[in-house]
Amino acid sequence: MSYIPLTPDLLRHWLSQHNALSQILGGTPPTWRIREVSNGNLNLVFLVDGLTGKLCCKQSLPHVRVAPEWPMPLERALYEARYMQTIAPYVQGLTPQLFYYDSDMFLLVMENLTPHEVLRSALIGDRAPEGFSSIIGRYVAQSVHGTSWISQPFEKGSQLLTEFSGNTALTRITVDLILTDPYRPCDRNPKPLPELEADIHFLQNDPAIHVSVNKLQHRFLTQKQSLLHGDLHTGSIMLHHSDVRVIDGEFALMGPIGFDCGLYLANLFIHALAVPHKAHFIQAEISAFWHSFASHLRELLKQSSRGDAWSLSLPSIDRQKLWDEFLHSILQDMAGFFGLELIRRTIGFAQVADYTLCPTPKAELVARKQAVLTGHTLIKQAKHLHTFDAFLNLLAPCFKAL
Amino acid sequence: MSYIPLTPDLLRHWLSQHNALSQILGGTPPTWRIREVSNGNLNLVFLVDGLTGKLCCKQSLPHVRVAPEWPMPLERALYEARYMQTIAPYVQGLTPQLFYYDSDMFLLVMENLTPHEVLRSALIGDRAPEGFSSIIGRYVAQSVHGTSWISQPFEKGSQLLTEFSGNTALTRITVDLILTDPYRPCDRNPKPLPELEADIHFLQNDPAIHVSVNKLQHRFLTQKQSLLHGDLHTGSIMLHHSDVRVIDGEFALMGPIGFDCGLYLANLFIHALAVPHKAHFIQAEISAFWHSFASHLRELLKQSSRGDAWSLSLPSIDRQKLWDEFLHSILQDMAGFFGLELIRRTIGFAQVADYTLCPTPKAELVARKQAVLTGHTLIKQAKHLHTFDAFLNLLAPCFKAL
Ligand SMILES: Nc1ncnc2c1ncn2[C@@H]1O[C@H](COP(=O)(O)OP(=O)(O)O)[C@@H](O)[C@H]1O
Ligand SMILES: Nc1ncnc2c1ncn2[C@@H]1O[C@H](COP(=O)(O)OP(=O)(O)O)[C@@H](O)[C@H]1O
Repeated sequence: MSYIPLTPDLLRHWLSQHNALSQILGGTPPTWRIREVSNGNLNLVFLVDGLTGKLCCKQSLPHVRVAPEWPMPLERALYEARYMQTIAPYVQGLTPQLFYYDSDMFLLVMENLTPHEVLRSALIGDRAPEGFSSIIGRYVAQSVHGTSWISQPFEKGSQLLTEFSGNTALTRITVDLILTDPYRPCDRNPKPLPELEADIHFLQNDPAIHVSVNKLQHRFLTQKQSLLHGDLHTGSIMLHHSDVRVIDGEFALMGPIGFDCGLYLANLFIHALAVPHKAHFIQAEISAFWHSFASHLRELLKQSSRGDAWSLSLPSIDRQKLWDEFLHSILQDMAGFFGLELIRRTIGFAQVADYTLCPTPKAELVARKQAVLTGHTLIKQAKHLHTFDAFLNLLAPCFKAL
Repeated sequence: MSYIPLTPDLLRHWLSQHNALSQILGGTPPTWRIREVSNGNLNLVFLVDGLTGKLCCKQSLPHVRVAPEWPMPLERALYEARYMQTIAPYVQGLTPQLFYYDSDMFLLVMENLTPHEVLRSALIGDRAPEGFSSIIGRYVAQSVHGTSWISQPFEKGSQLLTEFSGNTALTRITVDLILTDPYRPCDRNPKPLPELEADIHFLQNDPAIHVSVNKLQHRFLTQKQSLLHGDLHTGSIMLHHSDVRVIDGEFALMGPIGFDCGLYLANLFIHALAVPHKAHFIQAEISAFWHSFASHLRELLKQSSRGDAWSLSLPSIDRQKLWDEFLHSILQDMAGFFGLELIRRTIGFAQVADYTLCPTPKAELVARKQAVLTGHTLIKQAKHLHTFDAFLNLLAPCFKAL
């Protein structure tokens, strides 16, 4: 079947032609219940329920779903499939299982997560259980370790570069929306609240910010440390109780490990700004993420021995020092990208729903001002951070004010 | 024509089938003079003289030319051709012109450089004219700037990653021979002079060296700053008076800029160790390289405005600071890779002919000991260097002793 955007009926037909998938669903095609649930910005998503099983089908559109005039190559589905296949061996069930990828239809068929919900919605609805961030910390540690130059012969890392460097359409979004647009007047930036204009003007005219953002641009593009999810925010995670899964890997690229960490934590932090009474809960999640990430990464590094980076064996004390320095540089990257994400989700093109939770326009303004200010500080201070506590301290004024 | 290793007669036939090339040569095929001049380790090289013009033909063998039991993929010719095509627009005639690449024969047909000679031979024969290193400095600045993320949209950098990440067979040589083997007992390391054994033992048992080499391994593999030549030693340069050309780009890969710089300078430095009376000459070349490299790079950075890294405009003072920091980090990489190259060319698998110039075995031993010691120091101190003069100072004890 050559590419055509699916409707429920077309999908029913397509599934009926694929034996292994039909068997998962059970019963006959007419009995399958198919619902479109696309709520992301970019793609079509269908949930399919059969007699004995269920599936989730995600298909690329030739444009941005919510902005049809913005063309977008279909290949993003291919990169999402590759990402899932690449990291599955490392993350032990923390992604949905991928059953099938159709390269003509740009269609992924994967495990249908029910009754999971998207973390951002769970947070907004106050239903997120404590401790999910430890699992995300483990996820990031496992996925970036498994795809690093430390854990495998460099030929595998080179293979990842070959496989993922073509994902430029989605990386272009990151480069523009996260790394560039918020720091200069730009048509894509939405009109801000009038009371935020002065803050934005200040940001866009601070040479020190421009120096730091320029360096983060260069780090993002040159530091090919590991395979990243590339869009790890609270909308890319689904959970049900302690079953936490990462979805939506279509932005996957080789990059600096701190990027995945920073994006995730910034999205948590915005939630705390928007819902001040949850500050302690979120602060605990932020800490849980880092401690889980760091301890899992150390444990994995302890076991790795097949990489061409760090291939010379060291006395234990020197290995510890090497890991400390590595985590230190990840922390600094994390802080910088955290700042960038905070700002772009507050004044950039793709903002987040969390701000709608603010009870009054005044409260929303306060939250947004704090986000811009904290982002501004983090971006400039990132390179001077030496411990995770120092990072938390930079967030503390907000947590205290809350 | 499907792949077959060329002989002069086969090449004559092949050339006669290619009109544009036959026309460059002029006359009839029987009048062409064809000589095999392969003196590198890996490939076949033929020089062809015709009535009106001449060509150089370089072909991959399915194995290392000087070690037929060591298989080597033919594709290295493809990467060399790609490298030449990629950097030609930037380096203004500092490589031979590439006339043709035959992807079935793994054959490059390029400008025949006559009466040029290889820089290493010119140095050994005491025929190298002063100042050639300024030109190499310009070459490195232009090639790494043009292929960086600072000078072009990131999609172009991603394209380079896609095109060059597959060059793993030659990168494997670098990873093993430069970044790993000399720092541990290894069958590939040749048996050293008995008087050098203690120095090697000391090197291979210094945890501080292992820490530094491990970090350089990681930098080499993760820092995809620019397209590198990857094997820029004095055997990869040909010159005649002031006409200086870089050849043999088959090791091309995306990597840290300081790698090309460090390899080049280390090979110059070894020459000074082997021929002490040329110390001043070589020291001047080392300085000329860096000053030319740094000033050309600054000039090019001043003009660049199309990159996705450093895309935010800055007041002049902040731009200067950004360039200073960039050059500073290149300097540190250069010093580290300089140290690695010094050591591997002295105790590793592929050593250099310069040592044969030492007038006595005692002199050779002194030279080699200095190389190992200086390499050892450089590798450990690289991260603490802040100026080019500090780098020169680390070499100074040798220059003074000479
Ligand atoms: N495996 C899945 N199981 C159940 N629902 C899913 C699954 N994957 C995605 N969804 C639903 O579809 C929505 C959009 O998916 P997502 O991958 O985020 O798409 P987009 O790339 O368009 O952002 C998610 O927010 C979620 O509600
Ligand atoms: N363009 C050229 N013109 C003239 N001679 C060349 C040219 N390219 C290579 N040679 C000669 O061939 C030798 C081997 O070439 P090189 O590219 O270094 O091969 P290898 O990859 O085997 O090291 C050089 O040392 C030089 O003498």
